[in-house]
Formats: sequence, C-alpha cells, structure tokens
Amino acid sequence: MPNEAGGAECVSSLSERELIGRIHRRLPPPPDWLVVGIGDDAAVVEPARNRLDVLSVDAIVEGVHFDRSFTPPAAIGHRALAVNLSDLAAMGATPRLALLSLALPGTLPIAEFEEMIASLTAMAARVRMTVVGGNLTRIEGPLVLDVTVIGTVKRRQTLTRTGARPGDDLYVTGCIGGAAAGLQMLRAGMAPSDTTELCIRRYLYPEPRVRLGALLGRNHAATACMDLSDGLADAVRQLTEASGVGATIDGNALPIEPSAKQWFAEHGRDAVNESITGGDDYELLFAARPRQRGRLKAAERHGDAPLTRIGSCTADPAVILSQDGVNRTMPFGYHHFR
Amino acid sequence: MPNEAGGAECVSSLSERELIGRIHRRLPPPPDWLVVGIGDDAAVVEPARNRLDVLSVDAIVEGVHFDRSFTPPAAIGHRALAVNLSDLAAMGATPRLALLSLALPGTLPIAEFEEMIASLTAMAARVRMTVVGGNLTRIEGPLVLDVTVIGTVKRRQTLTRTGARPGDDLYVTGCIGGAAAGLQMLRAGMAPSDTTELCIRRYLYPEPRVRLGALLGRNHAATACMDLSDGLADAVRQLTEASGVGATIDGNALPIEPSAKQWFAEHGRDAVNESITGGDDYELLFAARPRQRGRLKAAERHGDAPLTRIGSCTADPAVILSQDGVNRTMPFGYHHFR
Repeated sequence: MPNEAGGAECVSSLSERELIGRIHRRLPPPPDWLVVGIGDDAAVVEPARNRLDVLSVDAIVEGVHFDRSFTPPAAIGHRALAVNLSDLAAMGATPRLALLSLALPGTLPIAEFEEMIASLTAMAARVRMTVVGGNLTRIEGPLVLDVTVIGTVKRRQTLTRTGARPGDDLYVTGCIGGAAAGLQMLRAGMAPSDTTELCIRRYLYPEPRVRLGALLGRNHAATACMDLSDGLADAVRQLTEASGVGATIDGNALPIEPSAKQWFAEHGRDAVNESITGGDDYELLFAARPRQRGRLKAAERHGDAPLTRIGSCTADPAVILSQDGVNRTMPFGYHHFR
Repeated sequence: MPNEAGGAECVSSLSERELIGRIHRRLPPPPDWLVVGIGDDAAVVEPARNRLDVLSVDAIVEGVHFDRSFTPPAAIGHRALAVNLSDLAAMGATPRLALLSLALPGTLPIAEFEEMIASLTAMAARVRMTVVGGNLTRIEGPLVLDVTVIGTVKRRQTLTRTGARPGDDLYVTGCIGGAAAGLQMLRAGMAPSDTTELCIRRYLYPEPRVRLGALLGRNHAATACMDLSDGLADAVRQLTEASGVGATIDGNALPIEPSAKQWFAEHGRDAVNESITGGDDYELLFAARPRQRGRLKAAERHGDAPLTRIGSCTADPAVILSQDGVNRTMPFGYHHFR
C-alpha cells in the first residue's frame, strides 16, 4: 500500500507477524540464558548469578522527543535504546536484555521501520544486550518507541542518587551543551558541516556512558550517580535532594562542547544557561569523596569519556551556580508536563 | 488548566514529578526484594531464587485497543495490566513486578488519570504484583499505556506454545464470545442491563487466568498453552503451528457465553464465528494428553474458571472447524496491521 508521500510501501501493508519477523531476522543467535525467546506469549530468562536486576523503561514520542522532519530513522532507533542504556549506566549496571514496544503509524514506510530497527539492534549488539521480546501495535497518531531494559549489578556496586555527602566532589562525564546546540542547528535547518557535525551527532546519536557507569560502580569511587536526561541543572537538583545535601557548581568549570559554545555565542545565547538547562546530553553526574581522585583517574583511563570536576556538595541545601565571581540559584531544567 | 470539556483540571497542569507522586501514593509498602524503587534512574530487584524470569510487554492504544467514549478510565487501567497478566498466565508464571510507561495527552483530566491508576494498582495488589517503576511522557495524540511485567516460574513448570502432540486434547478456560458481544453492545450505545451487563463487563474488565495458568504449569498437565488475546481461531492456528501439529475443533463444544449467543442471534450474526474471531477474551487455550483428565479436574476445582474440551490435535497440519457435521477451514483472526 503506497503511503501519502507516494510510492513507498508502508507498514500497514504488512501483518504484525511479518513486522516481527523483520526484527527477528536482525538479531544475533540468542545466549544460553534465554530459555524462551521471541514467538511465545512471553520471554523466559535465567537470572544472572549473584547479581541484582536493574530495570528501566523509557519511551520516546514523535513530536515530543523527536521531530521526524529532521531526525533520521536510524537516529530514532538509536535514541530509543540509548536513553535506556543511560539509566542503566547511572546505576552502575551492565546491560543484559531489552524488550521493544513500538506503536507504529500505518503510514510509516517499511524502509524507515527497517532503518530504525537496524540501528537499534546494532546498538544492542554493541553493548552485548539481547532483545528478548516486545510488542507491535498500530497507532492513529505519532510514532512511539517504548523500550524496557534490564541490566545486572552486584549488590555492593549499585549506584543510586542518595549517597552524596557534604564535601563530596561533583563530576560530570564527557561534554555538555552539544546536544542542545545540535537540536538548535537542526531546527534552524543547518546541514552537518565542520562546525555543526559534532553537535548534530551528539543530539542524534547520544553515546550513553555504559562502560564508565559500570566502572564507577565497580571501583566504589562514586557515592551517588544519575544521568543528565533532563539537563545538568535538573540532575544536580535531583541528586542533591535525594541525598539530602546542597551543592555549589562552578559555572566556569563546566565542560561545554567547544563548537556548541561557539554556536551559542554566534546566536547571542548564554552558553552556560543553554548547556545546563538543555536536555538530551546522556552524560552522568556523580559525587565522589575528594580522596577518590586516584580511582577516578583510573576510571577515566579505562572508560569512554573524560571526567570533569564541576563543584561540590554542601551541608546547606541550596543549589548554587557560581560564575565569574557571582553566585545565583541554579536554574530549573526541562519538564515534560508543565 | 481547564480542559476542552470545560472545568476539569487536566494533567498538563501538573509536573511529571507530581504525577509520579500520585501513582506512588497508591502503592503498598514495597517487598524486601525491591532494593531500589521508584525515584532513581532505574529499579533494582533481587531475583527470585530457583526461578526463571518470565517477561512480557504489551501496549494498549486509544483508538486501536479502546475507545475513550465508552471505556471508563478504570477499565483502561484494568485492561492495560490484564492483557499482560494473561501472557504470564499462558506461560504458567506467577506475577511478580510491573513497570508502567504511560504517554498522556495533556488534556487528560487528572480525575481520569487517578481512576486509571487506582484500577491498575488495585489489580496489581490483588495478584500480589509490585509496581517497581515506569515512565511518564506527554503525547500529542492518543493515550498509550505500555506495561512491562515480570513473573517467575520453575524451569520444569514453564508452559510454551510448542509442546502439543497429535492426539492431545485442546481445552479452553472460561467462556468465549462475551468480550466481542460486549464491545458490540457498547458500540451500539447499550447501557448495562440484565442481558448486557455480563458481556460488557467481560469486555471492559477481563479477568486473566493467573491462578489457572500457574496451576497448569505446576501440575504438568498441559503440553502447550497460550492466551486468546486475538481470538480462539488465531490462538489455535498459532499454538498448532508452533507445535508442528494440526487440530480439529468441535464448533458445537465451544463454551460460548450464553448472553453473547443471544445477542449474536438477535443481531443475525453467527455466534461461533463471532466468538472465535473476536479478540479480547483473555482466556487460555491449552493442549493436554487425554490421560491427564484427572489432573485437569483438580486444576478446575482449585482454579478460577471451568475448563472445556473443544477438540484435539492432529498429525495433519490442517486446522479444521467441525460444526453440525460440516468441516471447514478455521477462519482467520484479528490482525493489527493488515
């Protein structure tokens, strides 16, 4: 059945079973611990020995989390899994399995469906994660990708948001602001070029800090950790509130992506503000005792991103952003509903 | 913020956090095995000892799986969990935990959100299942409830679709056709009355066969099992194909809901056809060796529904419906995409 754009075959011309078959074909041979895989009422798996299960679900919705006019299908599939992997990383967990629940508009071209799935399953394979099952449904509305992931972690290596203490240093992985700038570039209709490619890539294909999260859990260096899905400002507020502390963040120390900083400057926007309130940077924020700096150096060497100290936790519950000698209250981040 | 209907406060006037709080408040105290619950990047749970994990995800989408004009919020919440519990029952698993991922239109009245959640969490409590986490997002489109469930089962008690052998009897739990008739009644604008109440209830508030599924797994009576989410005809085709057998179904033996039969007759519809192709009956279809009839009697006594023998498996791969002395090919069931 041709779609509105004319010509391309769309998913409404296939049965649910045929679509599931197209996902199934892209999956590598299942591991031993998968007792019953795709094709039954449910998947059956053997639990990992001496590990806790870490569970997360996150949905990305067309029109809310991505705009199909400038987000290629491969980026949609990538992001759907990446946002979930970031949650596992924030707990110190190693990815194990995923369930995909997709609500597809009937007019979605089959080719786009295939690109989305190819990208998602490629990322799953890269982090050695098995897609064990899922669900497909039609929707009269936007495309929705809902992914459930399960990772594993040893009990004493679990990272939560609640363990930060006054005096702990606060760190962020990688760079911030790149995704927010990338989204602005895409909205402005910019094509990838020398100056925009990195930020656009950061927005479209975020790299969750899977390796670093697991390392931080394993070497017991972090006292609390969470990911930056809704921006650094929001993450600092949430982590400190969960831990019952406050924080002072050094605005001059923030690792802002250089090409993002340039973009913000060229467009008369405040780089710090844009970088801490913009979402979509799937980096980790974590707290660590000052004496753990040696362990953090080791994690940085073996991990997949630099670590930057951006401030410290305080007994006073206020969350302060200190920049060029001026202190102000940390701005609020992005909220979905209000 | 008033919604279009005028007056009622809707979810867009609350933050994501406030909405999560309203779910959280309805949950009973968490069990010991929940190491980290709602409020962190992910949930952390201790696996059940000597059990396999059984995982399923299923979404219900407004406009595809339910019509908000005649489906009350309590029924929407109930169905979102029920369809998943039915998958666990079909595997012989005992429910353990759930993750809720909800995509909410901003105009959804808060009161409807609360009714939906109250109904869903009440059902979870009834089957002793813990809601360990989830995700909320806004959607510019239909309401979507995506639920992931995990149950547990002993390895040798796992029920799959693949174990049926020629000569096995085929059984169905409870009654069929009630949900299909109930949906027709609702679409025709019928109010619940003496003759319609049961069918409407069957459609709006399906009772998954959680207890019976676990019993069938435990007593090793069934060789294969699946649930009827897309109708009996579809289930018979899928179970027999997965097992590499065929089947003959006795159309005269089908346990059709009496008030549904009456409704179909009054409206000139074929009761057998409507009952086997209509979806939404969350009953179980299973195969069992003829010598297991004693064990099945015991399961029926301790379970929550009658069991009816509706035919048997054949070496010939054809799936035949035999009715009033006439044999025909089993009709095809409901498909989401085509």
